[in-house]
Amino acid sequence: MNKDKITVLDCSIRDGGLINDHRFSDELVRAVYKSLSKSKIEYMEMGYRSSKEMCPPSEYGAWKYCDDEKAREVIDGIESDLKLSFMVDAHRIKEQQFFPADKSPFDMIRTATYVKDIDLALNMVNKAHSLGYETTANIMAISKETDSTLIPCLKKLAASPVGTVYIVDSFGALYDHQVKHLTLLFKKHLPGKNIGIHCHNNLQMAFCNTLTGFRNGAAFFDGSLTGIGRGCGNCCLELLLGYFKNSGYDLMPVLKVIEDYFVPLQKEMEWGYIIPYMITGLLNEHPRPAIAVRKTKEKDHYSRFLANIPEKTG
Amino acid sequence: MNKDKITVLDCSIRDGGLINDHRFSDELVRAVYKSLSKSKIEYMEMGYRSSKEMCPPSEYGAWKYCDDEKAREVIDGIESDLKLSFMVDAHRIKEQQFFPADKSPFDMIRTATYVKDIDLALNMVNKAHSLGYETTANIMAISKETDSTLIPCLKKLAASPVGTVYIVDSFGALYDHQVKHLTLLFKKHLPGKNIGIHCHNNLQMAFCNTLTGFRNGAAFFDGSLTGIGRGCGNCCLELLLGYFKNSGYDLMPVLKVIEDYFVPLQKEMEWGYIIPYMITGLLNEHPRPAIAVRKTKEKDHYSRFLANIPEKTG
Repeated sequence: MNKDKITVLDCSIRDGGLINDHRFSDELVRAVYKSLSKSKIEYMEMGYRSSKEMCPPSEYGAWKYCDDEKAREVIDGIESDLKLSFMVDAHRIKEQQFFPADKSPFDMIRTATYVKDIDLALNMVNKAHSLGYETTANIMAISKETDSTLIPCLKKLAASPVGTVYIVDSFGALYDHQVKHLTLLFKKHLPGKNIGIHCHNNLQMAFCNTLTGFRNGAAFFDGSLTGIGRGCGNCCLELLLGYFKNSGYDLMPVLKVIEDYFVPLQKEMEWGYIIPYMITGLLNEHPRPAIAVRKTKEKDHYSRFLANIPEKTG
Repeated sequence: MNKDKITVLDCSIRDGGLINDHRFSDELVRAVYKSLSKSKIEYMEMGYRSSKEMCPPSEYGAWKYCDDEKAREVIDGIESDLKLSFMVDAHRIKEQQFFPADKSPFDMIRTATYVKDIDLALNMVNKAHSLGYETTANIMAISKETDSTLIPCLKKLAASPVGTVYIVDSFGALYDHQVKHLTLLFKKHLPGKNIGIHCHNNLQMAFCNTLTGFRNGAAFFDGSLTGIGRGCGNCCLELLLGYFKNSGYDLMPVLKVIEDYFVPLQKEMEWGYIIPYMITGLLNEHPRPAIAVRKTKEKDHYSRFLANIPEKTG
C-alpha cells in the first residue's frame, strides 16, 4: 500500500451541511481544518459555492457559498499542507464568482452533476481548469444509470481537462459488486484520469464500497467524521484511516475532533443508520421521502413508510 | 438466488442478551417470534442454555438458560414454521440438562467454542446430535487464528456429525477479503457440511462480510433486528432480507417489530456503531476495554482510549 496512490478527501462540512443548511460555526470548521491537517489527510471540502440569487443568504449558513474571504479567515494562522475544495452543482450556476486559483485559498473545484447535465458540468470544469484549479466531476445518482447512458458521458469527460471523475452513490443503493463494475467501467473509459468514489451508508455499504473502489483502481476516497452527512451519512473517515494505517495518516487528531465537536453535534443533528433511509436506499430512490417523514410524528413508523413509499416516489 | 440455499438465523435475543444480562420481557420475545415467523425466517436463537451453578439465576434473566418450559410458554399458540435454537459455550458446560429434541421446543443446539476448546465442543455436538438436535459449531474469535491453527480443528469437525460450522468474527475485526479466505478454507476442509457466518459490526463490515460469505459458498447467515448485539452489534437482519428479497422473505413484519419494540429499547440499551468498539475491532481485540469505558464518564474520550488501550489489552 503506497500513500502516493491514495488520496483522502474529508467532506464532513460539505455533506454535513446538507443537514443543517450549512450553519457550522467558524470554531468547528477551524477545528476540523486543524485536525485534518495533523492527520495528514489531503483535502477538506468546506461546502458549496452556490448562487446567492438562487439560494438567498438569509436561508443558509456561510458554507453554502464558501467565499474565499471566509475560508481565508477560518484557516488563518494554522500550519497545514491540507488542500481545500468546494463543490458546485452543474445545474445551479448563475452569478457566482470564481477568482483565479492563485488568488484563492481553494485548490480544487468539484463539479457535481447528473448524467443529463454533463455539458453544463464540462463548462464548469473547463472554467475551473482555466482559472488554475484542480478539477473533479462527480457523477451523482449513479445507481440510476446504465452502462449505455454512462459511456457517452465518460467519453466526454475523457476528452476534457478534468483531473478526477467520481462515482457518487447519492442514494446509497449500490452493493459492492456494482461498485466494482462501475470502477472498472470508469477505468476503461477514462484513461489517464483519476477515479474517485463517494458513497452513502443507507445499506451500511459505504465503507465496504469505498474499499471495493480502492481494490479496483480508484485513487480518490471521500470520507466524513463519524460518517456525518445527510440521512445515513457517508463513509466514516476514521474507518478509512484505520484501513490505510500504513499510509502515513494519523487517526488520533481525527478521534480528538470527533469527541470535542461531533459527539455534542450528534445531539442536535441526526445522521447515521436510520431505517427510512435504509428503505429509500433499498428501493434505489432519492432520500426525499425519508427526510420528510423524519420531520413528522410518523418518523419511526417504518412499516407504514415502506407500505406508502411507492406513491411518494412514483 | 434460491431460497433453498439460504438459511437465515435471527440472534437478536441471544446476542442482544449480552447487553442486558438476558432480561428481555416475555412480551418482547413473543413479538419477535411472531414477527420472524411471518417473515419466513428459518431460525430464531433465544439465548443460552447456561449452567445455573456457574451463572446464578439471581444475576440473569430467563434467556440465559432457555429452559424448554419457558420457551414453550412464550411461543404458545402462535402458528409458525420457525425453528428455535439456543447456544451453549463449550467451555462452560456443567450440570445443565438437555432433553431429547422430540420432547423440546428447540430444534437446534449451537455450540460456541474457541479453537483451543474444540474437543469440549465436539463432546457437546455429539451429545446434541445423539439427542436428535440439529447441530452447529461456532468458532469464536476467529480473527485471532491462522490457517495452521484452524485446519486441524476443521478436520475434527469434518469427521463429526455436526451439520453447520460457523465463522464467528467475535471482535468485528475482519475485512471482506479475510472472510472470503476463511469461507473458502472452511469449504475445502469441511466437505458436506454447511458453512455459517456470524459477523460483528465494529468496522461497519458486518453486512458486507456476510454477503462475502454468501458469495463464497456459506449457507447459514446470522442477523439481528437493527443489528442488536454487544457493542457495535451484528449484521442487520433487515439488510439481509433486503438483499435476499427474491428469496421469499417478508421485510414488513420485521420492520413492524423493530418500530414497536426495538426503537423504544434503544433508549435503554446501547448498541450500534460506537467508536471505542470500532477501535477494539481495528486492533483485533476483545471489546472488553470498550465495554468498560462506556460505563464511565470517559465514555466519549476516544483519543485517550486509543492512547491507553495497549496496556488494557496487553
